[in-house]
Amino acid sequence: MFNIFPLKGGIDNVLGFFSDGINSGIKKDYIGEKQDGDLAFIRSETPCEVEALFTTNRFQAAPIKHFLRYKKDFKTDFVLINSKNANAMTGKKGLDDIDEILSHVKDTTNPLMSSTGVIGYPLEKEKIIAGIKKFDFNDKNSDNAARAILTTDKFKKEICFKVELENEKSFHIAAICKGAGMIEPSMATMLCFVVTDAKVPKEDMKELLQQANKTSFNAISVDGDTSTNDTLMLLSNGQSETYDKEAFYEALKLTLNHLALEILRDGEGSTKVVAFKVKGAKDENEAQKAAKALSNSLLVKTAIFGEDPNWGRIASTIGSSGVVSSEEDLTIHYDTLLIYDKNDPVLTKEKEEKAVKIMKKSNFTITCNLHVNDGEFTAYGCDLGHDYVSLNADYRT
Amino acid sequence: MFNIFPLKGGIDNVLGFFSDGINSGIKKDYIGEKQDGDLAFIRSETPCEVEALFTTNRFQAAPIKHFLRYKKDFKTDFVLINSKNANAMTGKKGLDDIDEILSHVKDTTNPLMSSTGVIGYPLEKEKIIAGIKKFDFNDKNSDNAARAILTTDKFKKEICFKVELENEKSFHIAAICKGAGMIEPSMATMLCFVVTDAKVPKEDMKELLQQANKTSFNAISVDGDTSTNDTLMLLSNGQSETYDKEAFYEALKLTLNHLALEILRDGEGSTKVVAFKVKGAKDENEAQKAAKALSNSLLVKTAIFGEDPNWGRIASTIGSSGVVSSEEDLTIHYDTLLIYDKNDPVLTKEKEEKAVKIMKKSNFTITCNLHVNDGEFTAYGCDLGHDYVSLNADYRT
Repeated sequence: MFNIFPLKGGIDNVLGFFSDGINSGIKKDYIGEKQDGDLAFIRSETPCEVEALFTTNRFQAAPIKHFLRYKKDFKTDFVLINSKNANAMTGKKGLDDIDEILSHVKDTTNPLMSSTGVIGYPLEKEKIIAGIKKFDFNDKNSDNAARAILTTDKFKKEICFKVELENEKSFHIAAICKGAGMIEPSMATMLCFVVTDAKVPKEDMKELLQQANKTSFNAISVDGDTSTNDTLMLLSNGQSETYDKEAFYEALKLTLNHLALEILRDGEGSTKVVAFKVKGAKDENEAQKAAKALSNSLLVKTAIFGEDPNWGRIASTIGSSGVVSSEEDLTIHYDTLLIYDKNDPVLTKEKEEKAVKIMKKSNFTITCNLHVNDGEFTAYGCDLGHDYVSLNADYRT
Repeated sequence: MFNIFPLKGGIDNVLGFFSDGINSGIKKDYIGEKQDGDLAFIRSETPCEVEALFTTNRFQAAPIKHFLRYKKDFKTDFVLINSKNANAMTGKKGLDDIDEILSHVKDTTNPLMSSTGVIGYPLEKEKIIAGIKKFDFNDKNSDNAARAILTTDKFKKEICFKVELENEKSFHIAAICKGAGMIEPSMATMLCFVVTDAKVPKEDMKELLQQANKTSFNAISVDGDTSTNDTLMLLSNGQSETYDKEAFYEALKLTLNHLALEILRDGEGSTKVVAFKVKGAKDENEAQKAAKALSNSLLVKTAIFGEDPNWGRIASTIGSSGVVSSEEDLTIHYDTLLIYDKNDPVLTKEKEEKAVKIMKKSNFTITCNLHVNDGEFTAYGCDLGHDYVSLNADYRT
């Protein structure tokens, strides 16, 4: 048995971790409240086990190549993060710049860097190096760090849990995250840094990260179509001197699920978050395929934005997703309202009014039961409104 | 040797074919000029060889199921087409309705029906049957027919060519087509009816249709993700008593390429048509995969709408498309302007000004050379603007 409690604040609660964020001058504009930082660090006073899941994009950004240059099972105690410039498609210069920048961070073990922003521009090295000198690496200001890593996000994303075990021991897990624009979800860079004082064995880290990622960030993004910089990193310094695999996994899942929904809620120009639940598929993979087809369909997204109870677009997307299904066996529910079934396909005035009422909510569930077998998966998506076009038509400037 | 000449008008030029379009009362609203028809027919005075390519959507609409019920190599002399209602997801009733409707068309051989519009509503049978009675099946009014099959299209799509052979014989090919909304291209129903008085042997028809489709409609849509009703049909009555395979194929390609670009030009809310040319890929399939990833990327589409010369989105999409490529070997051109190459990645003020000038045109080419091998494919796409959201947020009403 264990209990998980949410704490106020974020990384600051985790034993031995320090962080801060500042404006080094590379971000000229900013969106939303107080998000004018552009440079952050996360430091642990003792070296951490580290594991990361990266983008599957073939053109991995320089910071990812830099991470992968370290020997297997290296430990680290420092991550520098900048926003506004992705340091991607910058070739050998991009890697050299990281080396030079990190040489200005003294007394660290295998320091790391992470970047998000525009592709194809060299890092503003001098500004970043000057910024490093402004930091006090013993500061605990994770609110600033969480804000400095944002780009088009409308609000910061940070969370912390305390996990109490039966033996009266406890550990903390916290994370900061950036990402929005879940329309072509995976193209909008997602960075997430999870830190914990639990003593997570290196051999558990990859497995737990992958599993927890599957139902969180991966449920809101499309496999194999990711930005050049996507990063999910876990740092464990073990300072709590305790660990329980099941409890840690539960806390990790809570952390990532929360942040994934926060990303959706912050979707560029979105007004609603909808759960697309596919049941009765041949297997879980097919359920996932169909659920993601729904959450990524432009016609479904615009119908949701318009609160148009047009279940035909839902059905057509299931039909074109390639999964085993038939129009005879399919049923579609909006929340608990049965809106399609072969005996009752017509959208009567009465059904339509009920459906529109459901669609006016900022959260609802669309359930497609294929009645083929027992495969099930829920993907999350948001609607597509005018603000998405406005934000993305001129993001760079 | 042969010569191909475009003719004014459409199906009316083709020997032995008749067509017309009317408003039967099922389309209550209309978009654009004179597109208030909703019911059309195409008739040949002699039975035609017929071949069709249909949607790969698992939930094929009733008219497609009805076509496929005929015996292999059947001939037909009549197609009835309605817009506004797709007769899809309508079960056995959808098929029964077609039988009943077509029983009111007298003296025909294996009559066909084709539909486009909203999914999940029963056909307005009485209105359609009353409409049939208004037609004179000896009329040649293909302009009306071309207009009556439109839905969200802003303009009608019709074309005709005369092909003159060396032996002083000649034949005609003509087509009418509907489709727009090439954002998630294949979800917007595309109907195309090609008629010819060339004496095309049945055994050539499928092969020629498939080949010509690949570089036309298929270059603007995503395989395996199509609407419930997509149809490309070829009817040949042979009344010219002549045929030349090569000449016919060339004319068919011209016909379909023209209509495919017309569909793009009519893209819902689009302001530009861009050619995405991928060269130097491992093979043609990989080139096609990468080119289609570009033409379907929301971030690329919105950057084009915003005339933002952000080549990073182009590069990132190539990287995530899964094709063999590297940032070292990739080059990107906007028309003839080299905008990315590993030695010259930075978007200088000068390059940017030139790029913006190119992007202001209503047509330009983005060429990505992967320098891997010699695979090449060009996909066509349009930009994504606010009008797309407006049109699709409330299409049904």
